[in-house]
Amino acid sequence: MAGAPAAGAPVAGEVLARYLRAQATEFLRALRQHRESSTEEAAEPALALRAAARRISGTLHTFRPLLDAEWSDQLRAELAWLSGTLAREHAHAARLDRLIGALHRLSPAGPVVGRAPAVPTQNGGLTVGAAKAGALVERQLTLARTRAHSTALQALGSSRFHAVADAVAVLASEVPLRRDASGHPLAPFAADVEARLNEAVAALPLVRAGHPYNAEALLHGLGTDAAPESQDTPWHQVRLLLRLHRYAQEAIGLEPGHDVRLIGAGQALDRHRDAAEAATAAASAARTPRIAPATAYALGVLHADQRHDVEAARFAFQAVWRRNASPDRAVSTP
Amino acid sequence: MAGAPAAGAPVAGEVLARYLRAQATEFLRALRQHRESSTEEAAEPALALRAAARRISGTLHTFRPLLDAEWSDQLRAELAWLSGTLAREHAHAARLDRLIGALHRLSPAGPVVGRAPAVPTQNGGLTVGAAKAGALVERQLTLARTRAHSTALQALGSSRFHAVADAVAVLASEVPLRRDASGHPLAPFAADVEARLNEAVAALPLVRAGHPYNAEALLHGLGTDAAPESQDTPWHQVRLLLRLHRYAQEAIGLEPGHDVRLIGAGQALDRHRDAAEAATAAASAARTPRIAPATAYALGVLHADQRHDVEAARFAFQAVWRRNASPDRAVSTP
Repeated sequence: MAGAPAAGAPVAGEVLARYLRAQATEFLRALRQHRESSTEEAAEPALALRAAARRISGTLHTFRPLLDAEWSDQLRAELAWLSGTLAREHAHAARLDRLIGALHRLSPAGPVVGRAPAVPTQNGGLTVGAAKAGALVERQLTLARTRAHSTALQALGSSRFHAVADAVAVLASEVPLRRDASGHPLAPFAADVEARLNEAVAALPLVRAGHPYNAEALLHGLGTDAAPESQDTPWHQVRLLLRLHRYAQEAIGLEPGHDVRLIGAGQALDRHRDAAEAATAAASAARTPRIAPATAYALGVLHADQRHDVEAARFAFQAVWRRNASPDRAVSTP
Repeated sequence: MAGAPAAGAPVAGEVLARYLRAQATEFLRALRQHRESSTEEAAEPALALRAAARRISGTLHTFRPLLDAEWSDQLRAELAWLSGTLAREHAHAARLDRLIGALHRLSPAGPVVGRAPAVPTQNGGLTVGAAKAGALVERQLTLARTRAHSTALQALGSSRFHAVADAVAVLASEVPLRRDASGHPLAPFAADVEARLNEAVAALPLVRAGHPYNAEALLHGLGTDAAPESQDTPWHQVRLLLRLHRYAQEAIGLEPGHDVRLIGAGQALDRHRDAAEAATAAASAARTPRIAPATAYALGVLHADQRHDVEAARFAFQAVWRRNASPDRAVSTP
């Protein structure tokens, strides 16, 4: 037990600093591992890098009054740029996987992409449409992914990135706390985030989402493009607040798995986001000039299928959320 | 109370004969009303005519051993021809209503059919696609409906039809019961139908249907055309058995509304059938040669939307059915 912390709660500032140092160290570890990886192996360290960046950024945001504000805001902006740049490649790859998976479900077993069926059936039009839609989506998303990969590599070699890494290295050794920070308890800041989360969830149409097959997610799906996306926005917002809440809980010393509901709710909202983006990608592929009607038809089915999954994710979210609807869970104070 | 039936249960044969006479009389009444109606007013008597025809046909089937078999089989075949012929016009009209209603839900409020949006939006492609899809579906289903209308008029003027009407007129005055029929109780025949219904329901994938958003109805939706239809077949079969069961219950003297579950279950399966047929019509419109990709895309979304409603109808059916899952309801014996 040598070197164990002295008994008695550590002061608030030290709890926060310890969390930020740990995340900064994780960021630097993931960065080192990413540099030493081949392209194929780089996905996992890239994920770890983004996870650490999100945690640092979220913590700087939640506990902003305890930190050097100018320095924090500056670092947060740069971390957002970095996460965004690194996320894009992964997002295109995940979207492609999701859409190809859906096309496999929608057309008979066997490879779809880039291969027309060996035996033309009486209704070959639809099957060929699915194959062509798969090939089109693959071409477009692979191109987007390759571009995102180049952009990410460029970013990681840029002086802007080196400045971010330097700032995180500073954070790993010395957190720029305000002089009066140690006197403040952390719990009220975390509670603020939780209150904002609960408020945002309360504004969601959860009753409607709890009625299976309400057909809401496809409402106006053939209108202007903005229509379905605008109904998604509050859900995306809750997803971000939920993450911010989870990081705040971690920062004040709660176990990551202490609230199973948060994990289930987060997974449902990740699925919501993924399905919404896949649906948009299918609609966008359908606007490619000079595609065959059968291809466009398959993309329409695919779009609607993904919008159904958006609705399914909302149903899953409300089920998780309302299961423990009146917990009165108090945030523990470290 | 003069003319009230004597106390004590009437013999089985008389119960059956009374029911058949009543339905035959209703058939003749609806037929007379249909002949006196203008085209616009003819829909309601046509519905009543088909309802009576279905009840007569179902009763002849269920209680076949009590009736002159050859005569019954002959009349049933002719009633099936008549109902089928009369149903088609109504079915095309209902399908069109359903699809146009869905397109209204899928694209912004305002008329869709045959009118492009006044102000072309940035994403006008999709909106125009919805308008064109609506116009195409309307053209095709209106044509089909007009043809069905002519066929129905022709049928109603044919000597074949007059023979059916004559046979029903016979039924209205004298039901061709077998001589030994009056000794047989009716309940076992009705129980047979119920047993067949329960067996068919037990073979349905109700557990899966009870999981909302199981995405089953779109499974292989882009494969050969037969794929989704083949998964619908057992549900359509249950729909017919449920109807046969309801008519058998009526024939043995139970009130039509005595089992609320049957009504809800029947409505869910009607919706299942309507949505499945609308989905097929959308897919079939998408195979029209030389349509624009935006039109095909809208039809793909529409097809998936209707298949989604197929799934919703299955969910509704299992909810109604399982609500009173272990009733051990015995068929009352008249």
